[in-house]
Amino acid sequence: MARAIIALLTDFGLTDHYVGAMKGVILEICPEATLVDISHDVPPHDVFTASLELSAVYYLFPAGTIFLVVVDPGVGSARRGLAVETESYRFIAPDNGVLGSVFQESSQTKVVELTERRYARPTVSRTFEGRDRFAPAAAWLGKNVQLSALGRPVTDYQLLDIPTVNRVDGKLVGQVLRIDHFGNLVSNIDRKTFENYAQAGAIQIEVGEYAIGRLVEAYTDIHDGDVSAIFGSTDQLEFATNSGSAVRQLGIERGDPVVVGRE
Amino acid sequence: MARAIIALLTDFGLTDHYVGAMKGVILEICPEATLVDISHDVPPHDVFTASLELSAVYYLFPAGTIFLVVVDPGVGSARRGLAVETESYRFIAPDNGVLGSVFQESSQTKVVELTERRYARPTVSRTFEGRDRFAPAAAWLGKNVQLSALGRPVTDYQLLDIPTVNRVDGKLVGQVLRIDHFGNLVSNIDRKTFENYAQAGAIQIEVGEYAIGRLVEAYTDIHDGDVSAIFGSTDQLEFATNSGSAVRQLGIERGDPVVVGRE
Amino acid sequence: MARAIIALLTDFGLTDHYVGAMKGVILEICPEATLVDISHDVPPHDVFTASLELSAVYYLFPAGTIFLVVVDPGVGSARRGLAVETESYRFIAPDNGVLGSVFQESSQTKVVELTERRYARPTVSRTFEGRDRFAPAAAWLGKNVQLSALGRPVTDYQLLDIPTVNRVDGKLVGQVLRIDHFGNLVSNIDRKTFENYAQAGAIQIEVGEYAIGRLVEAYTDIHDGDVSAIFGSTDQLEFATNSGSAVRQLGIERGDPVVVGRE
Repeated sequence: MARAIIALLTDFGLTDHYVGAMKGVILEICPEATLVDISHDVPPHDVFTASLELSAVYYLFPAGTIFLVVVDPGVGSARRGLAVETESYRFIAPDNGVLGSVFQESSQTKVVELTERRYARPTVSRTFEGRDRFAPAAAWLGKNVQLSALGRPVTDYQLLDIPTVNRVDGKLVGQVLRIDHFGNLVSNIDRKTFENYAQAGAIQIEVGEYAIGRLVEAYTDIHDGDVSAIFGSTDQLEFATNSGSAVRQLGIERGDPVVVGRE
Repeated sequence: MARAIIALLTDFGLTDHYVGAMKGVILEICPEATLVDISHDVPPHDVFTASLELSAVYYLFPAGTIFLVVVDPGVGSARRGLAVETESYRFIAPDNGVLGSVFQESSQTKVVELTERRYARPTVSRTFEGRDRFAPAAAWLGKNVQLSALGRPVTDYQLLDIPTVNRVDGKLVGQVLRIDHFGNLVSNIDRKTFENYAQAGAIQIEVGEYAIGRLVEAYTDIHDGDVSAIFGSTDQLEFATNSGSAVRQLGIERGDPVVVGRE
Repeated sequence: MARAIIALLTDFGLTDHYVGAMKGVILEICPEATLVDISHDVPPHDVFTASLELSAVYYLFPAGTIFLVVVDPGVGSARRGLAVETESYRFIAPDNGVLGSVFQESSQTKVVELTERRYARPTVSRTFEGRDRFAPAAAWLGKNVQLSALGRPVTDYQLLDIPTVNRVDGKLVGQVLRIDHFGNLVSNIDRKTFENYAQAGAIQIEVGEYAIGRLVEAYTDIHDGDVSAIFGSTDQLEFATNSGSAVRQLGIERGDPVVVGRE
């Protein structure tokens, strides 16, 4: 039987022992698991960014992968813990919208609340449920415990308010969703929406106060000193430089508007 | 036979190749090992913090786990390298107190000095014993080499001076031991000590110059804008906000006093 | 059959999902692979540093290890992707010199361009070939696909211009190649070159504007407050303090000259 793959996404950072604590707990239950880090540097308590990052990768993993997602501003409160099964994957996370993208993209999902105490650590701290409740649940899934054994079905789980692209005065209006390690500004306007709008005609693109002169296909097509538009690796319209940092050059922030209009 | 689990804790950072070098050496000897990172961002040369972080996680790992702990300001000097076996775990580390918490918490320990040259790399650099001496020793333990084969018994190993909580003028006086990724200020006052002191009576809590108004059970119980006291995931009294950063709000530093008194 | 070991070295950082995306792709193809991180914090687009970091570790890994090296300022351009086999190892990387040290150190290498589309993802993004082309190629090598199956032989691959140590006015003149996590300044003057030059005579060492008073064998031999010379873990002359940071103390930058002369 194949070894379980458990992929972790948190806002714990890598300086403290918190990620190591979860891994110790998982390996105690499921020592043969393959552990993979997606990121532990989600901005603290930023459920929205975690949801985006998860959405950008989970479909790449082999079927059966278990995702342990702990970005949890409500730790210790009454918010529930969830186990979710889609056609191909399983997820353990707090019920706070962090699985919003998954719910949106999967037509059939089973969702249970993590209520079965035998699949948690004997004492569940109200300050670190990642260690005491979520990590054990992920590990038990890795040991082939069925989702339905983890707790009772839930249908009123939290979704996520993902900013939509709107039509305003005949223009497409989106926003900057995230800013990456290379300083690229990634918007919520995807290639299909853009191409449907742009069709054959000439278009104008603005991010914040800046008019973007060119839409290119590779970063190396961007002229030195310029910021250009490009469809990045998740097929969303982004703004980038050739070898510098667009965010440093433009001073744009997350949430700033991205506007696409016709000339 | 189960695969060896080797958990790493260092102050090497993740930017250079140093952690990768140790992992290459381990896998060359024990390719089937499961490698787990606890942290590589211990502040440089900070043996005390490394000892705390180790103490917070090692007991969570499966019995048999090997811990490779390299925070080693004395690299290349006469300080010894140690292999340590407790009831459930094994540790490889320099003899500088970094295993102080382990020694304190384990009643029966075997300790040897790493003297057997056949279990080190052929040439041992005086600037990187992590790669040349400690990593190979951990890997050979993973290959079921006995602890006693690694070198001669040692009884005068270094302990660690862990700050104690004192009674001063009828008050409990501890200190801030560490500040975590979320800005929480973790003290050395544990729940049991606190509860023995507080009993049924009302108490007052101060950290540095600040009087802390409330002791809560979950971060979400903290009022917006407040810093409250809470027992964190290691059951030590800590100071936290709901969604901000206590360290940024109070400007407290490691070592600052924490005082618990009766009203 | 032994499990494939795939070691990753990139400039992707650990905040975004990019490393996780590559790992997902690898595990989808080769779920039994052992994944090892060398570093993901190479400065963005810094092919030279990546080559140095790779050179410092790859020889430590077990024979058969596959190295996936993605520092790729030319992503999406006409620059080729390469698969390289030396006597003991295999490498997947863009053809931009990042494997320069490997080519220099290996007498026999097979090199092919990654042209076989069946060993890439069905759609290859022009902004993330690490995910779509390089990660799958590494994973297929892990599944025992032969190097020659990945594409056509190449002989005109990019080498790297590694700064040499020169003799100027009877002195050895090198430079600071990299600055590490501990603030040590690592030069390109190796021990052999130094010892051939120094022989029995007294020597003088300068880094930037600073005369370095002593050459020591262990960091603990450095006097408090001093910066001394020492041969570090890669046997290159470096400049270090005992417990502080040489870079902070001297304000030296990468590329600054290192001069060794006779008294």
